[in-house]
Amino acid sequence: MTGLLERFMAQFNIVVVVGSLRKDSFNAKLAKALEKLFPAEFSFTHARIDDLPLYNQDDDAQQSAQVKRLKGEIMAAQGVLFVTPEYNRSVPGVLQNAIDNASRPYGKSAWDGKPAGVIGVSVGPIGTAMAQQHLRNTLAYLNMPTLGQPEAFIQNKEGLYDAAGHIGETSLKFLQGWVDQYVAWVKKHA
Amino acid sequence: MTGLLERFMAQFNIVVVVGSLRKDSFNAKLAKALEKLFPAEFSFTHARIDDLPLYNQDDDAQQSAQVKRLKGEIMAAQGVLFVTPEYNRSVPGVLQNAIDNASRPYGKSAWDGKPAGVIGVSVGPIGTAMAQQHLRNTLAYLNMPTLGQPEAFIQNKEGLYDAAGHIGETSLKFLQGWVDQYVAWVKKHA
Amino acid sequence: MTGLLERFMAQFNIVVVVGSLRKDSFNAKLAKALEKLFPAEFSFTHARIDDLPLYNQDDDAQQSAQVKRLKGEIMAAQGVLFVTPEYNRSVPGVLQNAIDNASRPYGKSAWDGKPAGVIGVSVGPIGTAMAQQHLRNTLAYLNMPTLGQPEAFIQNKEGLYDAAGHIGETSLKFLQGWVDQYVAWVKKHA
Amino acid sequence: MTGLLERFMAQFNIVVVVGSLRKDSFNAKLAKALEKLFPAEFSFTHARIDDLPLYNQDDDAQQSAQVKRLKGEIMAAQGVLFVTPEYNRSVPGVLQNAIDNASRPYGKSAWDGKPAGVIGVSVGPIGTAMAQQHLRNTLAYLNMPTLGQPEAFIQNKEGLYDAAGHIGETSLKFLQGWVDQYVAWVKKHA
Repeated sequence: MTGLLERFMAQFNIVVVVGSLRKDSFNAKLAKALEKLFPAEFSFTHARIDDLPLYNQDDDAQQSAQVKRLKGEIMAAQGVLFVTPEYNRSVPGVLQNAIDNASRPYGKSAWDGKPAGVIGVSVGPIGTAMAQQHLRNTLAYLNMPTLGQPEAFIQNKEGLYDAAGHIGETSLKFLQGWVDQYVAWVKKHA
Repeated sequence: MTGLLERFMAQFNIVVVVGSLRKDSFNAKLAKALEKLFPAEFSFTHARIDDLPLYNQDDDAQQSAQVKRLKGEIMAAQGVLFVTPEYNRSVPGVLQNAIDNASRPYGKSAWDGKPAGVIGVSVGPIGTAMAQQHLRNTLAYLNMPTLGQPEAFIQNKEGLYDAAGHIGETSLKFLQGWVDQYVAWVKKHA
Repeated sequence: MTGLLERFMAQFNIVVVVGSLRKDSFNAKLAKALEKLFPAEFSFTHARIDDLPLYNQDDDAQQSAQVKRLKGEIMAAQGVLFVTPEYNRSVPGVLQNAIDNASRPYGKSAWDGKPAGVIGVSVGPIGTAMAQQHLRNTLAYLNMPTLGQPEAFIQNKEGLYDAAGHIGETSLKFLQGWVDQYVAWVKKHA
Repeated sequence: MTGLLERFMAQFNIVVVVGSLRKDSFNAKLAKALEKLFPAEFSFTHARIDDLPLYNQDDDAQQSAQVKRLKGEIMAAQGVLFVTPEYNRSVPGVLQNAIDNASRPYGKSAWDGKPAGVIGVSVGPIGTAMAQQHLRNTLAYLNMPTLGQPEAFIQNKEGLYDAAGHIGETSLKFLQGWVDQYVAWVKKHA
């Protein structure tokens, strides 16, 4: 959680959406490590998605407090960062459900126009590439300008982090470059 | 709901998974109407997915009763029929979440090898085509042989049903043909 | 073809890539009609892709005059407009081949950074939606910021054009809105 | 090239389509090595796709000799094996163009019903996964039952081949397993 002073000074707040609910999620860990690579003017809000209802259009007229909370966070933000595993060669249902909830009712999507970044880490070498391919289709529909390059398909291997949990030396140059491009992208589209 | 006698005689039980939780779901309605076009030897189990937990890998060791119920239904079936809307140009999170839950833990997927059919109805003319494109990728990964042709992208327009809620004359030939192909597909792969 | 004076005054030149080689291509016709909806400061270069070689990496060291021509046009442009049919639920090979040729050798892609728009017309109601879904994945990789909304899946039906071949009244509001958004997108990213 | 006697005895002829035209194509090499893992009753026809015209619907009424040759080979075969690189996160244009040519005119597709396998090798770790994701969508449309599991995303690294160009020990178990599943799939659907 960003401290009060930092938040006060921050000009760009990013909603971070992690696509896994696992307590020791590789993607939650990656998200935290990535945040340290951002400039001081960026702060982060960690979207909670584990308490959202399964989306049901019948609830559109009276969305739950949890959905309203998520939508409020997104609408107040200058960008969204998706850090997600790949389940069954696609976007995890839990993430897609968060996307669905915050995209409704029709015409009241919270995502509209928010610049997005997509990144993910997996145990295997595919590094969530196929999930990202689907997610990008959805983000295009949601009218979220999404950083194209560099792509980031991260494999969770030795050296990704140092002892303190920061991005390790091997991956630092690439991931700092990714963050720098995302920062520029947010500034351009915020 | 199929009667007891029919179920007893049925040689092929199909798990029907509807991707929308809406009470008056167009896709639930389509599913019900489609079932009437199947031969007598087919029976149907309507998978309940609205009470599933959001998938969390931490629960893999002790899956909930709801997840076990879904997995049991799938494993006992000879085929799966997905009838789903398209949300945000992809598979609804609620459906993807059901898929995720029943696909885990690794190596214990309930979907493995079950022949599948994919169909969907929408208000607009795209008829869930883009959701189906993503869903097919997931079903290939789940090792579910999936009917290729005919594709079925249904628009919910005048004449789709008759007054009794059965498939109307305009669409009957096409949808009966679709069911016939799916029936042959299930028989080949069951 | 834009006249000399118009070209001289134009500040934004758009390379138009039509994904069909058919002489009376619906997409070529749509491209021409769309161009009339752009403001005067926009001019158009019609990329020729029917004389490109089938891409072969062995030719990377000495690309043909045709490939160099295409790459030169793209690099000199402020944006790219893809107007394409859907073949076999994906991007036509002829268009993908043009994309491949102009994307190589590695590190020398002509597409890099060029803002893109994607639109297409088909006889059926899907309106090239599934081709666009794949094309958007490729454009993300090519680092081409691509207009998200409005999407444009055009069906070639009565009233799309008036007698003079201009966009007809029924479709004018939607397509003028699409062009306006694309124009703003190009100006933002050029 | 399979010898005359082998061809005579073979009950299953597979058309092998390599998605790269490069003389020393990694995928052509993989295709050749894979063929050695098939049982004796399988023979192979190597589809030539470098001399096909760029698909143009105007030619549908009189397809070229090259297109007729390809279509004839496919129609005479019991299965199709796609061995392809990934270009720009999708199917190479040269392969998509071959697919387009042999799929037309409407209703006269050569691909219809032929069981398919999809495999590919790349320098990077993604191993053509994203190209395969798109290709599977096209094959579903072409009504080609396509092997789901095992997936095969091959990275071209040390040990993939032995000195004689055969599949090396490290990869042999996996790739022999892949071939065995594909063989069973072809037998089921041929």
